[in-house]
Amino acid sequence: MTLDQISFAARFDGITGSAIREIFKMIAKPEMISFAGGNPSPDALPDQIVSEIAQSVLQKDGKRILQYGATEGYPPFLESLSKYAASKIGCESPSVLPVTGSTQAMDLLCKALINPGDVILVEDPSFLGNLQCMRLYQAKLVPVPSDDEGIIISSLEEAMAEYHPKMLYVIPDFQNPTGKTLAADRRRKIAELGAAYGVVIAEDDPYRDLRYKGEPLPTIKSFDREGWVVFLGSFSKIISPGMRVGFMAGDRRIIRKCTLGKQSADLHTANLTQAIVDRFLRENILDTHIPAICKGYARQMEAMLEELDTFPTGTSYTRPEGGLFIWVELPEGIDTKELLNQAVERHVAYVPGTHFYANGGHFNTLRLNFSNSTIDQIHEGMGVLRDIFGKVL
Amino acid sequence: MTLDQISFAARFDGITGSAIREIFKMIAKPEMISFAGGNPSPDALPDQIVSEIAQSVLQKDGKRILQYGATEGYPPFLESLSKYAASKIGCESPSVLPVTGSTQAMDLLCKALINPGDVILVEDPSFLGNLQCMRLYQAKLVPVPSDDEGIIISSLEEAMAEYHPKMLYVIPDFQNPTGKTLAADRRRKIAELGAAYGVVIAEDDPYRDLRYKGEPLPTIKSFDREGWVVFLGSFSKIISPGMRVGFMAGDRRIIRKCTLGKQSADLHTANLTQAIVDRFLRENILDTHIPAICKGYARQMEAMLEELDTFPTGTSYTRPEGGLFIWVELPEGIDTKELLNQAVERHVAYVPGTHFYANGGHFNTLRLNFSNSTIDQIHEGMGVLRDIFGKVL
Repeated sequence: MTLDQISFAARFDGITGSAIREIFKMIAKPEMISFAGGNPSPDALPDQIVSEIAQSVLQKDGKRILQYGATEGYPPFLESLSKYAASKIGCESPSVLPVTGSTQAMDLLCKALINPGDVILVEDPSFLGNLQCMRLYQAKLVPVPSDDEGIIISSLEEAMAEYHPKMLYVIPDFQNPTGKTLAADRRRKIAELGAAYGVVIAEDDPYRDLRYKGEPLPTIKSFDREGWVVFLGSFSKIISPGMRVGFMAGDRRIIRKCTLGKQSADLHTANLTQAIVDRFLRENILDTHIPAICKGYARQMEAMLEELDTFPTGTSYTRPEGGLFIWVELPEGIDTKELLNQAVERHVAYVPGTHFYANGGHFNTLRLNFSNSTIDQIHEGMGVLRDIFGKVL
Repeated sequence: MTLDQISFAARFDGITGSAIREIFKMIAKPEMISFAGGNPSPDALPDQIVSEIAQSVLQKDGKRILQYGATEGYPPFLESLSKYAASKIGCESPSVLPVTGSTQAMDLLCKALINPGDVILVEDPSFLGNLQCMRLYQAKLVPVPSDDEGIIISSLEEAMAEYHPKMLYVIPDFQNPTGKTLAADRRRKIAELGAAYGVVIAEDDPYRDLRYKGEPLPTIKSFDREGWVVFLGSFSKIISPGMRVGFMAGDRRIIRKCTLGKQSADLHTANLTQAIVDRFLRENILDTHIPAICKGYARQMEAMLEELDTFPTGTSYTRPEGGLFIWVELPEGIDTKELLNQAVERHVAYVPGTHFYANGGHFNTLRLNFSNSTIDQIHEGMGVLRDIFGKVL
């Protein structure tokens, strides 16, 4: 029998791969100015520090680091992470689980909770990588409308009452892709609605520390009384995405189920990368590293916003207080997916906004990332986009 | 609503966690002699080499290592791994995918292929970690009988005809848990049957290089003409399990689907651990490292076999040519699961054999690991087990 006759699992029906990952490959050329992806700036990646730490932890605890570890985590990291998570989240002694990037946290949460056909409520638009994850678990994605302050609470409550969802997936700070931040009173309300309707709230907060103006808002998890909120954390944006270290924090019963799921997913996250992040936490390296990163990113964001101010009339865009992304809406009728090829030919890339919508559409939108380009590249690349979009208008 | 009212996904029904992982926790005390687990010897873990390499790769390519990588793998590793896999497997230019330990390879293969209720044929007994993985995909596990040369081919063909399985899971070299090696002619036959019946053959071969006597046999994959065989490889037993680097190799179409599945599982395996293994391959470090490991393990295995020779009449056990495990069958009526507590009280641990059987039973069996104990510990620990089992006989 030839392999053409193989039948793959139904969960892959209609799954074609993350648009971002495909665009990544298209833009691998070094001359490309990429506003796609969510890559940290090369300047923000602490390669010298990590090199020293890697050597040091291996000298000190090499045999244990190279041996099998517990699914629950590398013990020293489990200790420092628990403190870190409690303080970051504003929640007393949550159960934590180190994971192989917060991508895995989402996967484990779906594994723990989702049967095919279960409903997950999502922001509209939302992070496409995690939308794909939910689709692979054959969840039914139901978008909930947002305004400038995030998810609209009355719509959320209606959706909970109507669809009996298993989960709400929400990115409260500097949302991906819009850059919007969820208002504080809505955070409290979301935690309450989760408990009222028995819906797990997946609070995905990888950008929390990348705040360039304004004051930090309390997490949704900090308002959680019954344990329905699970916080997904990441070190990708503040240390390194290539190390694949993130965590989830929440009620013991949910974390336990995710730990079981992780046993057969990858047994445990590499001890070496856990040990490296542990050292960052123990030595308070982030206290100086994060402000340094934010300084650079704030400048990059301002340069991009400045360019957007000169875009054709009818263009609107967000003015985030942090994070990595600006969301742009062009006048109706412009198709950013079609125009991407023109942009890439002129060595500029972005992600068409349609990919972030659970039900597609919205072809006049796009997501721009500013963290992975220099100020000069931002001016040059935005000039190219202004030209391309301007011609169609 | 209290969290007690949460309903977890159906895939977890009846899943209680890997018995080995639970025993691990029980035996965390330093005074324990553990014949449980499959841990490499601390002496076999190259902490000094890894420390030097880690520093060196981060000096040389730190920015790329800390940045997001491609799901397909860290480019230099993809290159060295492709050569390595082709030569190891005996198969021209297979598609390869680096994974977060070969545990993840099994998970991705199930993700790509298994719908709830699909049949997977398994050896009986087989590796319990991967049995749990298959159960989480709600596969129906159908055991196929073996003799001393591995799976019995006529039984396999009958099972393929009767159950129309999606997959056969087989560990050809120094099988976990039995230590048995699959005969060469059966390997060819399994590849042929896979193609004849359209069944994916998952060839899990983590112990291949740990051969202490006899000659290496060709892989099942080397007999594959149509692409139905997928080879799962691991660096856990020859470099470090704590680094979580393995790979899968096979036909482009299957690897592509697994790559899609990996996108939302963990995006990519940590670049740092991939870069470290890359250096092991490029500098041919394994050429001297593996023989050194094997020398030690061969002695440990001999010491354990020597002790088994003095066990009560009616005890039978395997005499493996390599790997990490010896399989013991005690006279009927002895329950190794019940006796485990006595052993642990006397600071000796093993894994009761029943956990390795898809349908349970076989309470008079146990798996012994020799790689993680010194020669002295082997003599002492086996003395304790002889005493405990002898008393019941």
